[in-house]
Amino acid sequence: MRKGEQTRAAILDAALDLAARRGLEGLTIGVLAERMRMSKSGVFAHFGSREDLQIAVLKHYERRFVESVLLPSLEAARGLARVRALFGHWLAHAALEAEQGCIWISGAVEYDDRPGAVRDELVAMVMSWQRELSRAIGQAVELGQLRPDTDVSAAVFDIYGVILVLHHDARLLRRPGAASRAREAFERIIAYFGPRAPVAAVAVAGEAKLR
Amino acid sequence: MRKGEQTRAAILDAALDLAARRGLEGLTIGVLAERMRMSKSGVFAHFGSREDLQIAVLKHYERRFVESVLLPSLEAARGLARVRALFGHWLAHAALEAEQGCIWISGAVEYDDRPGAVRDELVAMVMSWQRELSRAIGQAVELGQLRPDTDVSAAVFDIYGVILVLHHDARLLRRPGAASRAREAFERIIAYFGPRAPVAAVAVAGEAKLR
Repeated sequence: MRKGEQTRAAILDAALDLAARRGLEGLTIGVLAERMRMSKSGVFAHFGSREDLQIAVLKHYERRFVESVLLPSLEAARGLARVRALFGHWLAHAALEAEQGCIWISGAVEYDDRPGAVRDELVAMVMSWQRELSRAIGQAVELGQLRPDTDVSAAVFDIYGVILVLHHDARLLRRPGAASRAREAFERIIAYFGPRAPVAAVAVAGEAKLR
Repeated sequence: MRKGEQTRAAILDAALDLAARRGLEGLTIGVLAERMRMSKSGVFAHFGSREDLQIAVLKHYERRFVESVLLPSLEAARGLARVRALFGHWLAHAALEAEQGCIWISGAVEYDDRPGAVRDELVAMVMSWQRELSRAIGQAVELGQLRPDTDVSAAVFDIYGVILVLHHDARLLRRPGAASRAREAFERIIAYFGPRAPVAAVAVAGEAKLR
């Protein structure tokens, strides 16, 4: 990396750390310059505006998320193994974030009523991540590891809820054990959409034996 | 109501509306005075400080929440009927809030890293609401409408997640149908914790008939 790129990367790391704690809206060029012991114009030279900085921070976050959650999960076999890997890596990532906050989750509240380029970027990222989850769950259905009538969007909805409530309980309520509670909640979802115990088949088998 | 109480109530309504849109941290005496066409000192006369105002807004919200969610649900019979009523009224309340935002949910993100009296008040309210949910679910277990091994806190965790993801999908993603999706998700949770189809019993009955 050239010097300029190194500086930009260092600013982004600091900016992401600040945004995780104070929200993307709490991120200002002034605070960031102070943190980096740079002049404001020095920071401005790398990011033309506050909005550009916020979007760059979101992209920086997404890059890390893809590296630590999505890519390692793609090494797992298609189907349920990959769905479990995606959730497992996501959970590990979220548990780390319970220390400092997740800018996708805090951003959801900051930007839900605030139209503009930052909101658009955030929505696009969340949708893209939900598409990855949907694809993996769809493959598990195709492989017969989840029931054929599984509503894939419903499963994504449920799993997203688990991560949101984990973040809520760990950060707001400081409730211990939120991560293992989240893991159990995920297993309940998989059990729900998984192939059912064959009640009818057993009953029919019983009757067949009677004849 | 005396004049002073009427004014206080009108200020609280306006403050809650503002806080729902901008967050409790976005609520300032200045903005509120402007909205009410009052002087800042006129608003200060009712609320000694910004923090007192924020706490008063939280209490105002909780009072409304209790009136529109908790109290009508207590008219339903103990057990699963009441659990369904609690969720149904909560969902209706949350669907209305999808228009403007919920200060418990936005507050969770605003205050998770911000210690102080406002955070303490918010946490106490969320815990109190979760205790109501727990009590109703516990009664459904006692009545045998949910499985005896139901982990009540796990059920509360799951249900809370449904409301959080409803808020997320409706407000950030502007996804249509989030409310009916949430209702289905709740039914999946109840189905999961509900009495299972008696697989083992059927199998044993089948075997018994064989003898």
